[in-house]
Amino acid sequence: MHETLKELKGRLLEIYDLSMAAAVLRWDQATYMPPGGAGARGRQMATLSRIAHERLTEPGMGRLLDRLEPWTAGLPHDSDEACLVRVTRRAYDRAIKVPSAFVSELDEHASLSYQTWTTARPRNDFASVRPLLEKTLEMSRRLADFFPGYESIADPLIDYSDYGMKASSVRAVFAELRARLVPLVRAITERPAPDDRCLRQSAPEADQLAFGLEVLRKFGFHFERGRQDLTHHPFMTKFSLGDVRITTRVRKQDLTDALFSTLHEAGHAMYEQGIRRDHEGTPLADGASAGVHESQSRLWENLVGRSRGFWEFFYPKLQAAFPAQLRPVPLDTFYRAINRVERSLIRTDADEVTYNLHVMMRFDLELDLLEGRLAVRDLPEAWRARFESDLGIPVPDDRDGVLQDVHWFSGPIGGAFQGYTLGNILSAQFFAAAIAAHPGIGAEIARGEFDTLHGWLREHVYQHGARFTAAELVERATGSPMTIEPYIAYLWGKYQPLYGLAGEQPGALAGRRAG
Amino acid sequence: MHETLKELKGRLLEIYDLSMAAAVLRWDQATYMPPGGAGARGRQMATLSRIAHERLTEPGMGRLLDRLEPWTAGLPHDSDEACLVRVTRRAYDRAIKVPSAFVSELDEHASLSYQTWTTARPRNDFASVRPLLEKTLEMSRRLADFFPGYESIADPLIDYSDYGMKASSVRAVFAELRARLVPLVRAITERPAPDDRCLRQSAPEADQLAFGLEVLRKFGFHFERGRQDLTHHPFMTKFSLGDVRITTRVRKQDLTDALFSTLHEAGHAMYEQGIRRDHEGTPLADGASAGVHESQSRLWENLVGRSRGFWEFFYPKLQAAFPAQLRPVPLDTFYRAINRVERSLIRTDADEVTYNLHVMMRFDLELDLLEGRLAVRDLPEAWRARFESDLGIPVPDDRDGVLQDVHWFSGPIGGAFQGYTLGNILSAQFFAAAIAAHPGIGAEIARGEFDTLHGWLREHVYQHGARFTAAELVERATGSPMTIEPYIAYLWGKYQPLYGLAGEQPGALAGRRAG
Repeated sequence: MHETLKELKGRLLEIYDLSMAAAVLRWDQATYMPPGGAGARGRQMATLSRIAHERLTEPGMGRLLDRLEPWTAGLPHDSDEACLVRVTRRAYDRAIKVPSAFVSELDEHASLSYQTWTTARPRNDFASVRPLLEKTLEMSRRLADFFPGYESIADPLIDYSDYGMKASSVRAVFAELRARLVPLVRAITERPAPDDRCLRQSAPEADQLAFGLEVLRKFGFHFERGRQDLTHHPFMTKFSLGDVRITTRVRKQDLTDALFSTLHEAGHAMYEQGIRRDHEGTPLADGASAGVHESQSRLWENLVGRSRGFWEFFYPKLQAAFPAQLRPVPLDTFYRAINRVERSLIRTDADEVTYNLHVMMRFDLELDLLEGRLAVRDLPEAWRARFESDLGIPVPDDRDGVLQDVHWFSGPIGGAFQGYTLGNILSAQFFAAAIAAHPGIGAEIARGEFDTLHGWLREHVYQHGARFTAAELVERATGSPMTIEPYIAYLWGKYQPLYGLAGEQPGALAGRRAG
Repeated sequence: MHETLKELKGRLLEIYDLSMAAAVLRWDQATYMPPGGAGARGRQMATLSRIAHERLTEPGMGRLLDRLEPWTAGLPHDSDEACLVRVTRRAYDRAIKVPSAFVSELDEHASLSYQTWTTARPRNDFASVRPLLEKTLEMSRRLADFFPGYESIADPLIDYSDYGMKASSVRAVFAELRARLVPLVRAITERPAPDDRCLRQSAPEADQLAFGLEVLRKFGFHFERGRQDLTHHPFMTKFSLGDVRITTRVRKQDLTDALFSTLHEAGHAMYEQGIRRDHEGTPLADGASAGVHESQSRLWENLVGRSRGFWEFFYPKLQAAFPAQLRPVPLDTFYRAINRVERSLIRTDADEVTYNLHVMMRFDLELDLLEGRLAVRDLPEAWRARFESDLGIPVPDDRDGVLQDVHWFSGPIGGAFQGYTLGNILSAQFFAAAIAAHPGIGAEIARGEFDTLHGWLREHVYQHGARFTAAELVERATGSPMTIEPYIAYLWGKYQPLYGLAGEQPGALAGRRAG
């Protein structure tokens, strides 16, 4: 078996290198590429993806897995070899069902669609992307149909990013969460909103970036194995376990936007940096799911980065960095400002309480489109109606309505959004488990120390990479399946005193340990 | 034939994309990559190169060429189709002679060797790279032996970078040049050296870079299809004809090093930017040879950038950019300083007169190694002896001796150096031809105008890419085969008045048109 395993790893390494090369090209496109490079770049990335897909679906790969599986069946579920063969089998079985020609067609269509969207959105021009979006929907359905036997046509698409979840299971979690969230949003927004003018001030880009990097150093982000660059839409990317990068942007008239974006992406990056180094070059060198990945960005951005304790330590430093802007502003005012909850138009700018309402409506609209209840031509209107009903504010135009997110214009419809809310839920569940194991974490954060928290996450989440499914990982790390209780408890525990809400937390009382 | 040609172009496009992807990875490695990325990066680039080599050498490629050649034989030599098939055939015939396994082995060895060299050079430690260099020599010989029937074992290696040249033809040109150069170097260095203290001043990095970019704008470098970043060892690279990049560095205590490095790399880049855009994705989207490529970097760096006329326009601007450093320095002092000729240790810092002596000794040492007259263990001593005999100054250590250039430590021995001097020779020949066609070019340069020169180069050199061999291109562009006369005439015409040299130019009097 040793030789067979070695051959499998050799093939996987080549596929990994091709994917990582494509990631470098994508990063460069978003950071430094001059405009003249755009045409060839899309083609080059598509070429690399196609070759990687061809290599993954070679019959020899299936034969290797067939030979290895009887052997790994006798090994412990969490042995390196069993994990590797299991995760490779999943990727292989998925890949062989989709013809190479379809992969290329989808890539090319996504690229054209994205290019069109970048100019259509500022022009508030849904009409010009509509035919492309119709083709995207048709292709998304065809993609799902390569995986017959589903319950909902969205299931195979959800499975891509959150393996093990289905439309019905996501819907159940979302319904439960929604029932607890809507009263909380209502209670909060009935109270006067905190004054957040202190945040709407400008500061030199270099100083803002330097402050963010200083926080990352404290977090334990490894700069010898990563870096940060500027881009329009912040993201995290990885070229190897030794090179995990993030990007950010600085907004004029916003003192903390770049900072929170940095903390968010750093959460993703620390996850990747923490994966066991000997998984390099294999499909195990990846996150467990979109939801688990997002849980780490939200944990560091929100549960740590928007906590009172965090700012007890960092606020004096922020004041020292921006004295003209913040010297007159007390910590309490600043803390309330960065946790201001309000119904707003843009998902990516939403506070952590209303954020999930944005996600849920997108998830439902995806299902309506895929399951044939909604036509693309009626989408802008459906968006408006649903938004006004859920968020209670009017949608002034498509630019800040249906055109606001890149997802449907750069990939399939379906499976793109649920991970954000699953991530919020899991962020609180992991954080609560870490605190249950190490009750001193809160006090450490207030001293600017993050080693215990980071160490717990590395041990229970990061190091495992993609060895376990999200469900397995959550159970192993927290001792229970995914549950919304720690998240509700976290939100209530934070916003009840912040907004002086009356009474007890809405719904069940379990899981206050995260409070 | 249309379908066959289309299939050929499809295959070539994939090979091109793989090579360009490798170039992006190499650029990132030299500019932004954190140290932790190094291990995987070497492997990733090798994977891409190997796949590109595999695709080029597929038997189907040979069959396509076999089918196309009878057809292109009836087309004009300079038709697009004939050029494409001819240049592809050359690359294919070369590639199929070298086994993929050897290509990988050489890549891996070169990568290890380079890593070792980067730490060995600062430690002045030839011993640690010696066994690697011995293997490099052995592999260089094996590489040459894949091309039997050579006159000198260096021929196949020279042919890689300067197609059509052989050791004997390079040797003949170098002997002729040497006979004219040595008396000129002697005559100049007998005169007092100009004072160049005005250059040895520091200035803010950002201001130095801004000045260089301003000059590039005037040259006609397309910033929407290129950019400049910082690195240790400046280079030019291309990711498509729409994305051609250069790098530079800024040295403390050197006011013009970054500028001249920028002008040099921009010469390479403008060549690539000027290639006919419809050659994108084919082997025609490349320079004609190493020598022709270098002719363009040297033309813009030296014949333009170190000319009196150029500085009549730009010196007041440079003084305005660096008033504290240059306000008290007259143009004449500055002009003499940037053209100071002196025997010095480092090739890349050498002035344009002595530079070729550095190249010639490397070329001869490569031949001695390859042809078995010199062992690697005796190389440092041979270097010292030859250097002292040619340049007349002692070599203090290996760091600034045999270890100074990256070439032998990052690729085969043989073929690496002759292009630099061929480039110097051709830079003057092209420049003289441009001036013969447009006698006003000198006056335009003194007004900061470069359109006529750039236009002539684009028309006669750049647009053709790799359609013609260097010999064909030189003949077409200048009306004569390569000749050293314009170069000697240029050097004499510039340095005779600068140094107040007595008498007539050494050797023949032909080709004064470049003077």
